[in-house]
Amino acid sequence: MPGNRGSRELLEDYLEGLPLAPEGGELAVAMRYVLQSGGKRVRPLLCLATGKAAGAEPSELLPAAAAIELVHTFSLVHDDLPALDDDALRRGRPSAHVEFGEAVAILTGDALLAEAFRLACLYDAPEVARELAEATSAMIGGQYLDVTSSQGGVLALNRLKTGRLFSASIGCALWVARIPEARQSPWRALAEEIGLLFQLVDDIMDGDGYVVEAGEEEARRLADEAAARARARLADLPVDTTELAEIVEGLPTRAS
Amino acid sequence: MPGNRGSRELLEDYLEGLPLAPEGGELAVAMRYVLQSGGKRVRPLLCLATGKAAGAEPSELLPAAAAIELVHTFSLVHDDLPALDDDALRRGRPSAHVEFGEAVAILTGDALLAEAFRLACLYDAPEVARELAEATSAMIGGQYLDVTSSQGGVLALNRLKTGRLFSASIGCALWVARIPEARQSPWRALAEEIGLLFQLVDDIMDGDGYVVEAGEEEARRLADEAAARARARLADLPVDTTELAEIVEGLPTRAS
Repeated sequence: MPGNRGSRELLEDYLEGLPLAPEGGELAVAMRYVLQSGGKRVRPLLCLATGKAAGAEPSELLPAAAAIELVHTFSLVHDDLPALDDDALRRGRPSAHVEFGEAVAILTGDALLAEAFRLACLYDAPEVARELAEATSAMIGGQYLDVTSSQGGVLALNRLKTGRLFSASIGCALWVARIPEARQSPWRALAEEIGLLFQLVDDIMDGDGYVVEAGEEEARRLADEAAARARARLADLPVDTTELAEIVEGLPTRAS
Repeated sequence: MPGNRGSRELLEDYLEGLPLAPEGGELAVAMRYVLQSGGKRVRPLLCLATGKAAGAEPSELLPAAAAIELVHTFSLVHDDLPALDDDALRRGRPSAHVEFGEAVAILTGDALLAEAFRLACLYDAPEVARELAEATSAMIGGQYLDVTSSQGGVLALNRLKTGRLFSASIGCALWVARIPEARQSPWRALAEEIGLLFQLVDDIMDGDGYVVEAGEEEARRLADEAAARARARLADLPVDTTELAEIVEGLPTRAS
């Protein structure tokens, strides 16, 4: 994503400068460890690219973009816990509970979520935090359905577990850019396709999820269709979508 | 607290009517289980009593009051987990991880926190959710310091673990009642005393915390002083503080 290098640097600087758990002593060490674990930052970059295309300044967008990355990171830390997915590694490094112990990992996730909402509430427009809260709630609901295998196919589950936070990445950017709700639907339709595409690519690369349910060929077919629809949605937006298009074109080759 | 019976009923009805994790299937069952575990609702009742004294309608205050109770309940669910305090019982019933398993208990806490922020963001004034986010972050920091025994005496720890959410119970009510920041300090000074008093009473009843550090007699002495200062603060407020006074007078006889 060469065109996003500026956004990426802005984002990393902003994340590094966050006063994480200022009253929690060394808790910030664990929070920084998981935040700096080499993720591709797809969600916050999508937020920044959307907001810029919709007319907002990057500096205005950074709290929302960072909040979304913190919610995503919170979910990884808790999903990795022994009681949930029991993953000892995350992107090649010891996961939080292996590095810091289970108690600190639980609190690290909690603190990331609280910090995410602190950031989302920096805006005077309450819609940013509302959108984030609803997406977070849906994501946790999806994780519950996954853990308890209580209902739903893979695509419905992915829509909750991944899709809603992707939608919020775009939705929060639109609120920051003061795009009224009545003009948001083409953007939200794009978000839907990007979230679907991202998760299908992820499943194809990991050989799990929808690939197990329907086979790799079918997963690739759906991914190609989602990518085509995303491109069509992009072409319909009456703004400069270069940076957004780079994110979409970057997805079919890797996930994070 | 007979004078608060109206507030208590309003609050219970509101909590019962919350659409908890609407997309999380049975996750709402676990959320309701921990929310209906017989707590005394001191924090949300303090929020309602403060807001009413400051001129707000109870109906306006309910989302903030409920949000505070949800944050408190989230903290209990996660604190009870085996990796943290490992408490099998909570108010005489199996704690969440015993009743539903550890994975569901973790997600239940997470979902309560997300729902708390959804409620706090229902207000157009972003200060309500900001205050809640900062208090939540401090509370989690306090729990980290407690778990890792890394620093601080009992009183400093209590101030983070308990005091900050008590302060937010009053602070959020002030924002809902549109009391400008410049006029909030007498109320916030009251909140400080109530939080201190609550935790000292709790330590005295449980024979832990500050009682272990300084002895029961010293704890009682500090509690009496805090109660006296709280009464003086109440007397100084130029509004009807009957309901608030009932909460303060109820504290030295029980905690929740």
